[in-house]
Formats: sequence, C-alpha cells, structure tokens
Amino acid sequence: MGRKSDARNKILEAAKALIEQRGYSALGVAEICTAAGVPKGSFYHFFASKQALALTVIDEHWAAQRQQWSELLGSGREPLRRLADLFEATEEFQRAALRQEGMVVGCMFGNLASELSSQVPEIRDRLQEIFETQIDMIEKVVAEAKAAGQTGPAVDTREAARSIVAQIEGRVLLAKLLNDPAQLGTLWQNSLGLLQVPADARPAA
Amino acid sequence: MGRKSDARNKILEAAKALIEQRGYSALGVAEICTAAGVPKGSFYHFFASKQALALTVIDEHWAAQRQQWSELLGSGREPLRRLADLFEATEEFQRAALRQEGMVVGCMFGNLASELSSQVPEIRDRLQEIFETQIDMIEKVVAEAKAAGQTGPAVDTREAARSIVAQIEGRVLLAKLLNDPAQLGTLWQNSLGLLQVPADARPAA
Repeated sequence: MGRKSDARNKILEAAKALIEQRGYSALGVAEICTAAGVPKGSFYHFFASKQALALTVIDEHWAAQRQQWSELLGSGREPLRRLADLFEATEEFQRAALRQEGMVVGCMFGNLASELSSQVPEIRDRLQEIFETQIDMIEKVVAEAKAAGQTGPAVDTREAARSIVAQIEGRVLLAKLLNDPAQLGTLWQNSLGLLQVPADARPAA
Repeated sequence: MGRKSDARNKILEAAKALIEQRGYSALGVAEICTAAGVPKGSFYHFFASKQALALTVIDEHWAAQRQQWSELLGSGREPLRRLADLFEATEEFQRAALRQEGMVVGCMFGNLASELSSQVPEIRDRLQEIFETQIDMIEKVVAEAKAAGQTGPAVDTREAARSIVAQIEGRVLLAKLLNDPAQLGTLWQNSLGLLQVPADARPAA
C-alpha cells in the first residue's frame, strides 16, 4: 500500500475507535487526525467532511459484519442453530472488545441510531437500510424454521425477525451499561420464546 | 415560586429537551443557559457542573417515570394486563413526543447509557440503578403471573424481566430510528413469547 492509502486507513481506524468510544457529535476532525497521526491537510484529501468519514466507517463496519452474518445465517446447519451461531458471534465480538479495549463497546449502529436519528438524516437513512437488511437476513432464517415446523405456527416472520433484532440491540445496550458480555447469553432462549417454540420442543443449546 | 427556583426550573427544562434531542457530550453550559433564557452566572448558583445538571435531569425524569410505572404495575388488574398497560403508556409517551416535538425522542436512559457508559462513571452508575429498579418492578409482576400459572412453568422470572426491559429498549431504538411509535405495538405479544405463554393461552389484547 502506498503512503496515501496508509493515511486513509489510519484515519478510518482512528475514527472507528473514537466513534465506538465517544460517539459522533463529541468528535472533531482535528482530534481524529491527531489520533491517526496524520496532518489535518490530508484528511480533506480523503474525506469531504466528518460526516463523509462517519458514513465510510459505517459502511466498512457493515461490510465486515454483513459478511459474517451471511456466512453464519447461510450455513447448512439447522435454521434455529444458525440463529444461535449469530448470537454467539455477537457475544464474542463484545468479549473481544472487552479484552482488547477494556470495555464492551456495544453496537456501533445502535449507538449512532440512538445519538443521531433526530439530527443527521444522511446517517439515519444509512442506519435504517442496515437494520432493514439485518431484519431481512434474520427473517429468511425464521421463514425456513417456520416452514420446517420449528416455530409456533402463527409466527409473523417479519415481526419476529424485527423483534429478534430489537432484542439483540436491547441486550447489547445492557451489556454496554454493565460492561458485561454475559448479558448476551440469553439471546437464543429469548429468540425461541419470540418464535413461540414450545418449551418442550426446544433444541439443546 | 420565587425567581431563583424559576431559573432552576428553566435550566432543567431546557437541559432535558436538549439532552433528548442531542445527547450529553455535544451540549455546553452556555448553550443550555441561552435556551433557558438565564444568565450563565445563575447556572453555577444551582448546579456545580454540567454533569450535576444531567444527574438532576435523570433523577427528575426517573421520579416521574417510576411513579407512572408503580401505578400501572401495581394496579389491581391481571398481571399480564398490567404489562400491556405499561407498554401502551410507553408507546403513548413516544406518540406525544412526536406530536409535540416532531420526533420520537427514544428513551432518555437508553440514549445516555449508549452514549456515556464507557465515559462518565457517575452517570453510568445512576443508569445501572434505574435499569435494575425497572427490572425489579417488572419481575414482581412476572412472578405474580407465574404463581398464577399464566406463564410457562420454567420461566426464570429475573431473566424474563431483564429481557422485557431489553425488548423495550430495542423497540424504542427502532421507533426512534424510524420516527415511528408503532414499532412499540408488538411489545406485549413479544413479552408473552418471552414469558413462554402458550399461543392458545394468551389473553386478548
């Protein structure tokens, strides 16, 4: 990689870490450049604004997460087991942050949605697309499980998928508040409840 | 009320509205005073710092919300119906914000937990207490429902209450992101799923 793309990557990495730690509004371009170790002049060579940088951070984070979600939710395993795989990966992501950065960072998309939904339409719109895609991906697995008779027969697959995403966000928020990734340990059992899987028909964890 | 407490109340009201709109980090004392229409000198007569003000805003908001939760969850109605009453009030709160302020403001405690858990220990600790109290209050109702045979027999009342609070937070986040209070309309059905209430034993909505 040449020096120019090095500088771009340094800015992106520094911005991602700072956004995870402190959100968007409290950050300034000068601080990001200092953390990245690049002169402020090169910032505007790569990004038109702080907002443009944030959108790139969001897009890169989502590209990586989407890839992981696709692999886990598209594996050949039983549909409900695939949901468990996703929840385990979600918990492991927070455990890794706790080990490496000393804290549960929460969900970048949830954090930014909470902070910016009423303030920055461009970021809100991008986050809406991301959450809708997450719901799509989970709904596909829920529909497979329902077709196989593994959920309650009356489950609305779209609403159930939306509720599973909401449950992830709520549990990740508690994990962040308590700095405790174990708050995510009940996601699978909760999802089986949301999917109206009878208690005596639940697969082993 | 004398002039002094008027000024204090004006500061509190302005701070509450600004925190709901823009969070904590992006606010400055000068901006709060301008919005409140009080001179900056009087701010420090009432509050030692922005953080002290934020803690007072949190405490006053929680005192009001706790009173409402106590009334709804302590009414003489059927336990599961009391949960429905709470969810309806939660949705109505967001509908009122949308009517009055033009936007779903979300949950002040969830927003601040997302923003500040890794940054401001004093605020994080207060929010932890509030969420634990919310979980306590819901667990009490869940335990009543379980004792009356209205939940699945294997439900862990503490974990179920925690998951209901997480579901509220996740759904409120989606409501804020989509500026759509109707995202809260499924909270009761979802909670019945989390409580493992069999589909054919669910009370009418």
